[in-house]
Amino acid sequence: MEKETGRIEAFSDGVFAIAITLLVLELHIPELKEGEGPKDLLFKLVAQWPGYLAFMLSFFSIFIMWVNHHKLFKQIYKRNTAIMFSNGIILFLVCCVSYTSALMANFYDTPSRQLTITIYSGTFVLVNLSYNLCWFLASRDRSLLRPELGETEIKKIRNNYFYGLPTYLAAFALSFYFSVTALAINVLLWVFWAGSSGKIEVKNKMMAKSFFKTNN
Amino acid sequence: MEKETGRIEAFSDGVFAIAITLLVLELHIPELKEGEGPKDLLFKLVAQWPGYLAFMLSFFSIFIMWVNHHKLFKQIYKRNTAIMFSNGIILFLVCCVSYTSALMANFYDTPSRQLTITIYSGTFVLVNLSYNLCWFLASRDRSLLRPELGETEIKKIRNNYFYGLPTYLAAFALSFYFSVTALAINVLLWVFWAGSSGKIEVKNKMMAKSFFKTNN
Amino acid sequence: MEKETGRIEAFSDGVFAIAITLLVLELHIPELKEGEGPKDLLFKLVAQWPGYLAFMLSFFSIFIMWVNHHKLFKQIYKRNTAIMFSNGIILFLVCCVSYTSALMANFYDTPSRQLTITIYSGTFVLVNLSYNLCWFLASRDRSLLRPELGETEIKKIRNNYFYGLPTYLAAFALSFYFSVTALAINVLLWVFWAGSSGKIEVKNKMMAKSFFKTNN
Amino acid sequence: MEKETGRIEAFSDGVFAIAITLLVLELHIPELKEGEGPKDLLFKLVAQWPGYLAFMLSFFSIFIMWVNHHKLFKQIYKRNTAIMFSNGIILFLVCCVSYTSALMANFYDTPSRQLTITIYSGTFVLVNLSYNLCWFLASRDRSLLRPELGETEIKKIRNNYFYGLPTYLAAFALSFYFSVTALAINVLLWVFWAGSSGKIEVKNKMMAKSFFKTNN
Repeated sequence: MEKETGRIEAFSDGVFAIAITLLVLELHIPELKEGEGPKDLLFKLVAQWPGYLAFMLSFFSIFIMWVNHHKLFKQIYKRNTAIMFSNGIILFLVCCVSYTSALMANFYDTPSRQLTITIYSGTFVLVNLSYNLCWFLASRDRSLLRPELGETEIKKIRNNYFYGLPTYLAAFALSFYFSVTALAINVLLWVFWAGSSGKIEVKNKMMAKSFFKTNN
Repeated sequence: MEKETGRIEAFSDGVFAIAITLLVLELHIPELKEGEGPKDLLFKLVAQWPGYLAFMLSFFSIFIMWVNHHKLFKQIYKRNTAIMFSNGIILFLVCCVSYTSALMANFYDTPSRQLTITIYSGTFVLVNLSYNLCWFLASRDRSLLRPELGETEIKKIRNNYFYGLPTYLAAFALSFYFSVTALAINVLLWVFWAGSSGKIEVKNKMMAKSFFKTNN
Repeated sequence: MEKETGRIEAFSDGVFAIAITLLVLELHIPELKEGEGPKDLLFKLVAQWPGYLAFMLSFFSIFIMWVNHHKLFKQIYKRNTAIMFSNGIILFLVCCVSYTSALMANFYDTPSRQLTITIYSGTFVLVNLSYNLCWFLASRDRSLLRPELGETEIKKIRNNYFYGLPTYLAAFALSFYFSVTALAINVLLWVFWAGSSGKIEVKNKMMAKSFFKTNN
Repeated sequence: MEKETGRIEAFSDGVFAIAITLLVLELHIPELKEGEGPKDLLFKLVAQWPGYLAFMLSFFSIFIMWVNHHKLFKQIYKRNTAIMFSNGIILFLVCCVSYTSALMANFYDTPSRQLTITIYSGTFVLVNLSYNLCWFLASRDRSLLRPELGETEIKKIRNNYFYGLPTYLAAFALSFYFSVTALAINVLLWVFWAGSSGKIEVKNKMMAKSFFKTNN
C-alpha cells in the first residue's frame, strides 16, 4: 500500500518550519541612546532574558510537536477529510503558539505574567486535544493506517497522547495561582514527550523486523 | 505514467505554508502604559477580537484553498506553460489574501468595515476564477491528466469550481450593502468546499478500486 | 541514473517560496486619522499603486526565475561543489530582488525613482549572470546532466540565457535616462522567458518520446 | 536499506530556507526627509554597507551550514531520538545566527562592534559543537549510517568537523581584542568548508562506483 499522505506531510513540515523560525523575529535588537556604549548594550541584552527563554521554550515545544506529528503521520497511510481538517487544527495551533509565546515573553517581567502564562498553558491544552482528535479520527478506520500496525501499537500511541491531557489541564489550572510552576510542568511534559518518542520508535523498529521476517 | 508535477506541488506547498503562517504576524502584542495591569491587558486582548477572527477565517480559507490545490494537482500528471502560469496566479492570490484579511481586521470596528469586506470578498471571486482557469487549462488536454480519470470525474471537478463562481459573485455584490452577511456567505462557502472535498475523495477511491480491479 | 539533486531543489523551492511570499509584507496597511472614513481609506489604498505594481512585478519576476530554475535543474542529475555554490548565488539574488523591489516601490513617486529602477534593473543583470554561470558549470561536464539530453538542447538552453544578457544590460543602461522604459523592457523580457519556457518544454517532450522509442 | 530520514531533511530544509531568507528583512529601506533627493538616498544606502555585509556573510554562512547538513544527512539512513534532537539543536542555532548577525550589522559602526562580533563568533562555536554532536551520535551506531560507508569516510567526516572547533574557538577568543580579524577568520573557515565539501563529494562518488562494481 502506497503512502498517500506525502503532500500533507510536506505542507505541514512547511508550516512547522516557518512557525519555528518566525519565533526569532520576536527577539528585538536593543536601541542605544547617544553616548551609550557596549556595557549598556550588554546590559540591555541580558535584560531581555525572558525573550530568549520564551524563544528557546517555544522553539523546542514546536520542535517536539513536529517530532510527534512526524511519528503520527508515519502511521497514517491514507487520508480522508476528517484527518485533513484535524491536521489543519493542529497547524492552526502551531501558529498560535508563536503568538502566545511572544505575549508571555513581553509581559514576563510585569504584573501580567500570570495572565500570559495561563494563556500559554491553555494553548497547549488545545494542542494536546488536537493531537488526540487527529489520532482518534485516524485510528477509527484501520484501513487508513500503516498495514503492519498492531492493535497494541495503536493503543500505545493513543495512551501516549491521552495521558498528556490531565497533566496539561493540571498545568493550566495551576497557572492561575502558581504560574512559574505551571510553566515548569509544561517544560517537563515536553521532556517526557521527547523521551517517550524514543520508546515508540524502538517498538516500530522491532515491529518492522518481525514484519519483514514474516514476509521473507 | 510518472507524475511530473512534483516540484510544482512542492513550491506551491511552500507558498501556501508561508502565506498561512505569516497571518500570525498580523496579531499585535498590546502595549501597556505605566500602571496598567493584567486586567487592562486582558481587556486589550479581548478588544482585538476582529484580529483573531480574521486570523482564523483567513487561516482556514487558505487551508481550504490548499486542500483544493492538493486535490486539483493530484489529477494533473503532466505540466505545460499554461498550467504553470495559472498556478502562479493562484499563488499570487493566496499571498493577496493575507493582505486583504489584515486590511479587514484593521478596519472591522470602524466605518470602513464595508469597504474592506468588499475588497476581501472580491479577492475570493478572483481566487475562484483562478481555480476555474487552472482546471479548464488542465482538463482541455486529457494527456496531461491522471490516466484513470474518467469524463464524469473531470466534469464533476469542473462543476464543483464553476458553481462556486455565482455564489462568490453574489457575496461580493451583497458586501456593498450587507457586509457582515456577505462575509458569512463566504464562510459558508468554505464549509461547503470542506464538505465537498470529502465527496470527491470517496469518488477517487472507488475509481481507483475499479481501476485496480481491471488491472489485476 | 538516479537524480541526486532532489534536496538542492527542495531547499531552493523553499527559498523561492519564502522570497515570493515575503513580498506581501511590503504592502502597508494605511492608517486613518480621527474622523477619516472609507473614502479616505480608498484614496490611500489607491495612492499605494506603486506598491501593488512592485508587488505584482516582483512576484511574477521571482515566479519566472523559479520556473527557469525548475527547468535548469530538471536537466541536472548530479551535483558538484561548483553547481551548489552557483545555485547559492542564484538564491542570494532571489532574496535581493525582494529588497530592491521594495526600494523601488517606496520611491517610485519621488524624485529618486530613477535611482531605484537602476538598482532594480542592475539586480536582474546579476540574476541573468548567475543563471548563465550555473548552466555553464553544469553543462561543462556532461556526466552531471540528464543522460538523454542532446548537444542541441544544451546549446538551446545556453542561448536562451545568453541572449538575455545584452537585453538586461540594455535595460540597465537605459534606466539611467529613461527609467520607466527600462522597467517596461524588463517586464517584456519576463514575458519572453515565460513564453520561451513553453517551447523548451515541447522539445523535452519530443526528446523524451524519441528516447523511450529507442528503449522500447 | 531505505532512507528513513527524508522528512527530517525536508523539515530542516524548510528551517534553513526560511532562516536564510528572513535575513533580507533586516535590510532597512532608508527614509528621506522633505527635500532630500536621489543623492541623499544613494548616500544613505551606501552608509548601510555593514548591513549588506552582514546580510552577505550570514547568507553564505547559513548556506554553507546547509551544504554541510545536506552532506551529513546523506550519510544517515536511520534516525533515533538522539539524532532528532541534536538536529533540533542545529536548527535552533541556525535561527540564532539570523539574530546575532542582525545585532552585528546594527552595531558595526558603533563602539559596541567588538561585543557583537564576539557574540556572533560565539554562535559559530556552538554551531560547530552541534554538528560534532550530531555526527558523534550518528556514527556511534553503524546501523544508522549508509551501508556502503567505510570506517575511513566516517573518520574523515568526524575530523572535518572536529578540526573546525579549535579554529572557531580561536576566532572567538581573538574577537575580544581584534574583532575584525576574528570575523575574517570565520569567513576564511567558511571558505574552507566550502572547499572541503567538494573533496568529500569526490570520495563519495568513487566509493559509490566501487560499491556498484561489487554489486554488478
